Amino acid sequence: MTDLSQAVLLVSCPDRSGIVARLASVVHQMGWNIVQVDQSVDAEHGDFRMRMVLERPDGNSKGSDFTERFETIAAEEKMTISLHPREERPRLAIFCSKEPHCLQDLLQRHASGELECEIPLIISNHEDLRSLSEFFEVPFVHVPNDANRRQHAEATLETLLEEHAIDLIVLARYMQILSPGFVSNWPERIINIHHSFLPAFAGASPYRQAHERGVKLIGATAHYVTAELDAGPIISQDVLECSHRDGVSDLARKGRDVERNTLSRAVRWSIERRLMVQGDRVVVFG
Amino acid sequence: MTDLSQAVLLVSCPDRSGIVARLASVVHQMGWNIVQVDQSVDAEHGDFRMRMVLERPDGNSKGSDFTERFETIAAEEKMTISLHPREERPRLAIFCSKEPHCLQDLLQRHASGELECEIPLIISNHEDLRSLSEFFEVPFVHVPNDANRRQHAEATLETLLEEHAIDLIVLARYMQILSPGFVSNWPERIINIHHSFLPAFAGASPYRQAHERGVKLIGATAHYVTAELDAGPIISQDVLECSHRDGVSDLARKGRDVERNTLSRAVRWSIERRLMVQGDRVVVFG
Amino acid sequence: MTDLSQAVLLVSCPDRSGIVARLASVVHQMGWNIVQVDQSVDAEHGDFRMRMVLERPDGNSKGSDFTERFETIAAEEKMTISLHPREERPRLAIFCSKEPHCLQDLLQRHASGELECEIPLIISNHEDLRSLSEFFEVPFVHVPNDANRRQHAEATLETLLEEHAIDLIVLARYMQILSPGFVSNWPERIINIHHSFLPAFAGASPYRQAHERGVKLIGATAHYVTAELDAGPIISQDVLECSHRDGVSDLARKGRDVERNTLSRAVRWSIERRLMVQGDRVVVFG
Amino acid sequence: MTDLSQAVLLVSCPDRSGIVARLASVVHQMGWNIVQVDQSVDAEHGDFRMRMVLERPDGNSKGSDFTERFETIAAEEKMTISLHPREERPRLAIFCSKEPHCLQDLLQRHASGELECEIPLIISNHEDLRSLSEFFEVPFVHVPNDANRRQHAEATLETLLEEHAIDLIVLARYMQILSPGFVSNWPERIINIHHSFLPAFAGASPYRQAHERGVKLIGATAHYVTAELDAGPIISQDVLECSHRDGVSDLARKGRDVERNTLSRAVRWSIERRLMVQGDRVVVFG
Repeated sequence: MTDLSQAVLLVSCPDRSGIVARLASVVHQMGWNIVQVDQSVDAEHGDFRMRMVLERPDGNSKGSDFTERFETIAAEEKMTISLHPREERPRLAIFCSKEPHCLQDLLQRHASGELECEIPLIISNHEDLRSLSEFFEVPFVHVPNDANRRQHAEATLETLLEEHAIDLIVLARYMQILSPGFVSNWPERIINIHHSFLPAFAGASPYRQAHERGVKLIGATAHYVTAELDAGPIISQDVLECSHRDGVSDLARKGRDVERNTLSRAVRWSIERRLMVQGDRVVVFG
Repeated sequence: MTDLSQAVLLVSCPDRSGIVARLASVVHQMGWNIVQVDQSVDAEHGDFRMRMVLERPDGNSKGSDFTERFETIAAEEKMTISLHPREERPRLAIFCSKEPHCLQDLLQRHASGELECEIPLIISNHEDLRSLSEFFEVPFVHVPNDANRRQHAEATLETLLEEHAIDLIVLARYMQILSPGFVSNWPERIINIHHSFLPAFAGASPYRQAHERGVKLIGATAHYVTAELDAGPIISQDVLECSHRDGVSDLARKGRDVERNTLSRAVRWSIERRLMVQGDRVVVFG
Repeated sequence: MTDLSQAVLLVSCPDRSGIVARLASVVHQMGWNIVQVDQSVDAEHGDFRMRMVLERPDGNSKGSDFTERFETIAAEEKMTISLHPREERPRLAIFCSKEPHCLQDLLQRHASGELECEIPLIISNHEDLRSLSEFFEVPFVHVPNDANRRQHAEATLETLLEEHAIDLIVLARYMQILSPGFVSNWPERIINIHHSFLPAFAGASPYRQAHERGVKLIGATAHYVTAELDAGPIISQDVLECSHRDGVSDLARKGRDVERNTLSRAVRWSIERRLMVQGDRVVVFG
Repeated sequence: MTDLSQAVLLVSCPDRSGIVARLASVVHQMGWNIVQVDQSVDAEHGDFRMRMVLERPDGNSKGSDFTERFETIAAEEKMTISLHPREERPRLAIFCSKEPHCLQDLLQRHASGELECEIPLIISNHEDLRSLSEFFEVPFVHVPNDANRRQHAEATLETLLEEHAIDLIVLARYMQILSPGFVSNWPERIINIHHSFLPAFAGASPYRQAHERGVKLIGATAHYVTAELDAGPIISQDVLECSHRDGVSDLARKGRDVERNTLSRAVRWSIERRLMVQGDRVVVFG
């Protein structure tokens, strides 16, 4: 059913006149159809951003010509353009620790066909989630990691990521810090899930803090990881209601639910090429 | 702040190759900029639909040329095209009966500048909401209406609507039936709010029925009115949670909240030219 | 952490004066503490309903005396009373067919400790979900079932349910009809998940119908199964937003999400003894 | 329809055995019925809290005896007990500045009968909302207030509040700071609405900051005012989704919607005696 002759075109540049006309004409001349367009301009910053879904009616791959043509335009017009044929499924590595809820959700959505990606690698600093990974037939590698052996561990991670030609890292409740050096190698290519509350609680035992403060909503934020901890561009946010009757364990249960849904949604958007970072903001194309 | 040199272009037709390129080129040649595009194709029916927000950088109105040009294209290409300059604010008539909640919400959103329309006329089959209308300085006309004098009443309504050059009728809890003849004069130009539940309850006392059935959600549906009662294309839907502790009056209160929000949102979308009917479905552009 | 010296007391009867005082006194005399009370009266029908969470401070089980005492009161006062010690974990049988999403969700919530029950048995009319069941170490029994061998299949089911001392049947997308005879053996003890929409769509291909109708919400309803198909008392309902851009497969994906959450919540409430049927309505204690 | 022979009993104390039994017996002996109970114990802090709705079947007011009896028990047992006959409608003063959305929402809910209170006084540091107040026939007093004349203004406020026998102050977008001295005179009797975001934005132009940060949710928090600014116990919170397409004015519109709903809900809960502060947390009885 999936039509593999589709591709997504992402375009970003300072706004000016005639961009849509120029690009739509090129697409038409090359014999492709436009199936979907979501384009807008940020009125505050003058940023142009566009996502087009294209289709080759003959199913004949003219991918390389097409890519070259867009590279030329991008250079001439000083745009950022990328073309993503749907058959080039992104390759994900999932990092996890002991908690299964986010990993489980991603793996079953992948198994059900919701996530059009490859998952060739799961990495954990613990052994706990090996059997879950194996049930879904994804290779699991245990890479011990803590403050004392960060450098060595990250060298191992880099080797594994390169061997498996990974495009995107998903931190599915990975409870180790990644060094600024590592993060800078993967710009806009690491997605994390953060248990952020209203108001936010930093530090240990966030659910206990939330209970003490009597919050009425439990939230989660999926974001790109930048060197500045927990402050990267926000991809997706959601909340669940809670009340004074919720004990710490109830808040933790609701937290797991909102975390898994928020993270899986952000990952799906990334795979479907719906995300674009502009400044500190993430554009989520519809 | 509002930039009156903007216009919305709506295009609908059976999908074929090159439409976006052709229209974007015309827009560019005429000296306009494209600020926003939301285009898609319904894969099930092959319907092309597009909303473009355009901007004249010089603020110089070339509206009539522009409109002519699009009329030519529409005829040649068998498309449905409409151009809506932002300064041509749609003119609304609000029909109401005794309940104030939807009327109030629409009027205060209009007063706050959220709704870019004119509201030259409020019509009611009762006197109850006259003072509310007058507070917001909107002319209020009492037109008695019931099964026995439907024909006469509707003739009066048509005269009033014509005198005030009305574009869109909003039924804000108007508790009279409009005849098929009247409805057919206003295709896709009457918006109604319906207290639809999960499961739906027809007939009298819907909140009592909902209470008896023990529903856990109270909903509302805003839809275009067609000759087939309560079955027109759906514009907007929403729900609120409820529980066994909610008595009939609590359900009615929640019903009012969800009705006013759902209707006001549908009306705003209509004013912003975000709506397009295709078959039985309403496209809501983002 | 779990305090096994707790019990839930459920009381239902026509409302009259002094019930709370009488029952609270008995509880106090027997040396138990009241940890939580949720009591109300349905003003429309005069139904009294109450859930108390009780605690034995000494951890000493006086369960049998306690039960006897309440049986006496129930007989004298014509109340329906049941006492559920927390250590008597309900025993669930999950029925499923080919779709994994609801089964998976229930099993992982059980594994994480969210559901305080035993799951000694999974029954399916297909083999597809055997490996999933085995991963979670729950016995899986394949019982072929269709219109031609309904009687034989249901006899087998009854035997299995009895052998495993099952308290509650959960239909986790079980795509076979249960006969009125079978259903009548399990009153208020079978929970089903129904893909109900706004407006509801009966028959085959509900997501295709929903797409045709252009609905803006996708819903699900968890309910007790009665002989009247899809019309039993409603336990839990939820919805997700959708738009014209959602194809049939997107609606199906959202349907799976809302189904699994709605069913798992209803099952958790049942296990925590938060549910009571009164007339056609389900009381969900807070 | 409203049954004025009802009363709400609120009880708070350190948890110990037999409290429910003792109080329920007293209620029964005095000839009242218990219509609703919501009682729980905070497992972390050992706080007992209970709300009972009581009813006098004969409609005969024994209020004063009843109050005395509870005062005796409260003293003996070191509980905090308060009894609120439904006919003693709380008296609200609404403070506002220039923005009408919260005031409007409160006044129309009051007019529709949703809020069972008196509103004898609206106070503002501007004249803008006078006509709105007069439309709803509520006296409006202009009390200029700023950093330079805080002391004088607050003396005037105190006089007005006393003259009108005010029970509860609602800050409906009142853009002046109240001094710690003023606030300490009204403990747990001032409710404010705060435009809190995920993550929170302090300082000027919160919607511009939210836009820059690219948040995906817009929130609001209703809370009791304490001397520590914007840090009082949280009563109610809610959010609305937003996207990169929302400009600053769209975020402001969504902010108004979530603010008015969150504040009105908190005020209704207060009027219905559903709120109790324990430590930094607000218990919201169901």
